Amino acid sequence: MSSSAAPVQPPPPRPVRFGILGCADIARKVSRALLMLPPGAATVAAVGSRSEDKARRFVAETGLPGARPHGSYESLLGDTDVEAVYLPLPTSLHVPWATAAAARGKHLLLEKPTALCAADLDAILATCDASGVQFMDTTMWIHNPRTAKMREIVADKDAFGDVRVINSMCGFRASEYFLQNDIRVKPDLDALGVLGDVGWYCIRSILWAVDYELPEAVIAHYHPVKNQAGVLLACGATLYWADGKTATFNCSFLTNLAFDVTLYGTKGTLHVTDLVIPYEEKSGEFSVASKSNFVKPTIGWDPLPTKYVVTTELPQEALMVQEFTRLVQNIRDAGGKPEGKWPAITRKTQVVLDAVKSSIDKGSEPIELAS
Amino acid sequence: MSSSAAPVQPPPPRPVRFGILGCADIARKVSRALLMLPPGAATVAAVGSRSEDKARRFVAETGLPGARPHGSYESLLGDTDVEAVYLPLPTSLHVPWATAAAARGKHLLLEKPTALCAADLDAILATCDASGVQFMDTTMWIHNPRTAKMREIVADKDAFGDVRVINSMCGFRASEYFLQNDIRVKPDLDALGVLGDVGWYCIRSILWAVDYELPEAVIAHYHPVKNQAGVLLACGATLYWADGKTATFNCSFLTNLAFDVTLYGTKGTLHVTDLVIPYEEKSGEFSVASKSNFVKPTIGWDPLPTKYVVTTELPQEALMVQEFTRLVQNIRDAGGKPEGKWPAITRKTQVVLDAVKSSIDKGSEPIELAS
Repeated sequence: MSSSAAPVQPPPPRPVRFGILGCADIARKVSRALLMLPPGAATVAAVGSRSEDKARRFVAETGLPGARPHGSYESLLGDTDVEAVYLPLPTSLHVPWATAAAARGKHLLLEKPTALCAADLDAILATCDASGVQFMDTTMWIHNPRTAKMREIVADKDAFGDVRVINSMCGFRASEYFLQNDIRVKPDLDALGVLGDVGWYCIRSILWAVDYELPEAVIAHYHPVKNQAGVLLACGATLYWADGKTATFNCSFLTNLAFDVTLYGTKGTLHVTDLVIPYEEKSGEFSVASKSNFVKPTIGWDPLPTKYVVTTELPQEALMVQEFTRLVQNIRDAGGKPEGKWPAITRKTQVVLDAVKSSIDKGSEPIELAS
Repeated sequence: MSSSAAPVQPPPPRPVRFGILGCADIARKVSRALLMLPPGAATVAAVGSRSEDKARRFVAETGLPGARPHGSYESLLGDTDVEAVYLPLPTSLHVPWATAAAARGKHLLLEKPTALCAADLDAILATCDASGVQFMDTTMWIHNPRTAKMREIVADKDAFGDVRVINSMCGFRASEYFLQNDIRVKPDLDALGVLGDVGWYCIRSILWAVDYELPEAVIAHYHPVKNQAGVLLACGATLYWADGKTATFNCSFLTNLAFDVTLYGTKGTLHVTDLVIPYEEKSGEFSVASKSNFVKPTIGWDPLPTKYVVTTELPQEALMVQEFTRLVQNIRDAGGKPEGKWPAITRKTQVVLDAVKSSIDKGSEPIELAS
């Protein structure tokens, strides 16, 4: 026995073995993100589709080394090599397949909108809870370091004061093909339409802005736009908090690409115009005005707003899967518990979304939220 | 008689002789603007206040050469040397003094909010009409060349499409002194409070964005903030058009300085964050995104938004008085008629403001506007 024995090294982390359940377009972005992670974080063990051929093609096209193709979702869930499932299926399929995955002990990274309503989400979360698996939704921008920097500034009471008004507009101009064929305009697949898609980001960004305090009431705007099947293509709402804070959002498949969130505080103002998908992958900007005064006689501003640029080595979707992977490894390798903050903010988003949908369905009646 | 006689020159323009009726702070900015105009445009012939001493002090402090101080508003209006009146009195005094000025044949540049309600404004406009004098309100940013450039872009159907959603937030954080003492928080002086002050700009900017098409209905947001005297300190509303366009605004004396207007079109998006008072006097920025697509797989934007910078020799308030002066000279010297577009857009602004006020007073009932 040597007296100069090297200190005991922890074993290198074992990568989390993912199964991708469904070959949606968005799965290509998440697959790419998984491949970006440092060695030891994640591997894609398997891809499941309704046809093995489609799964095989997805594996080849995304360059996932060694991922097994499965010709059914059930078959993928039966693959004991799969520890965590990324699930980008249409929303109407989330309850059966997300609960099936969780029931088999697979950690769950679930595409948004996570469910058609909060009660459905609760069924999924209950199964995750019972199985002790990690749940996370795929709101990518939450994981961008820009978002953390914005939070730091907004939380600075001296510089920003209290947030009083929030505006968010998220949308893109869908092609004619999209408006005829995309799952997000089909009542049997993604019945929440634009509200579940980009409206999800509006609601999440507003909740983020108020540190996830639920509003007291929401009122949908008049004239939501629906397609012939009754699926929402554009809508909006105003949200009210008991202390007088107000937020307004609009979401649309019918206007030019926009991912705006603006926060108005008693002492500061924050503008970001590409929250959900940054203009460029490796850096993100936002601007902040704080304690702005007029140059007398009201001929200018002093100080001027400040532009912030936050860079990131890994794009936000890679940071998302990295965080999910870290939590799974903590449970699997270190006896940790699932991190509860992720399902908690998912649920709040879904609860507000439910209330907006309900107000739309009732002709813009105010809907109160249980506190 | 020489065969090389010079061509007949038109006589040099005779300056318009202004009287300033009231020595409010904002009058200093407008006096400064009048002094910036090229020779031959305008002179300040007289300043009227409730005390001659105050008028004299104002003349001295603003460096208005040769302006006669008057110790009463009536005395200023009796000054036959005064051709045009700039009137920055508290709103509750507008009807008596604006109609008195117009009835004496003085052209009228009237501070906003122009009246406490549209019916009051109509009394003023009727007098201007009967006297054949020019009416204009003091919405300065309308005269900024940046505004014309933005209009040009928004009107380009190929690049911008149709405007569908508009957001505006105008406000500033008032000091404790302001909140106790300013005329804009006093029910007997400026009873419209924040709605008449910065809310005016929200409403005007929204109307500007839709080329002055009146909305079909407005609904005030819940929880307007009022002071103990019942004067509005913060409020908001949503505006609806028959074709589904929607606009939301918030105005506040309680949040950090903000003059935001964002237009969302089917093909383009326009952001401006210092509409009412540009960050700097001599140039103004805004940004436009047009036909924005995602970089596949939704990892960026292509094309990126474009930043525009529009410079101006004269600040917007000088361009405003220059335009007013030009219209007055056209009437006085060239037999022209008053330009009707200015009172028309003032009236639309006031009509929408009335509807918002009415909705606030009725607990956020929807208020329909006559078309």
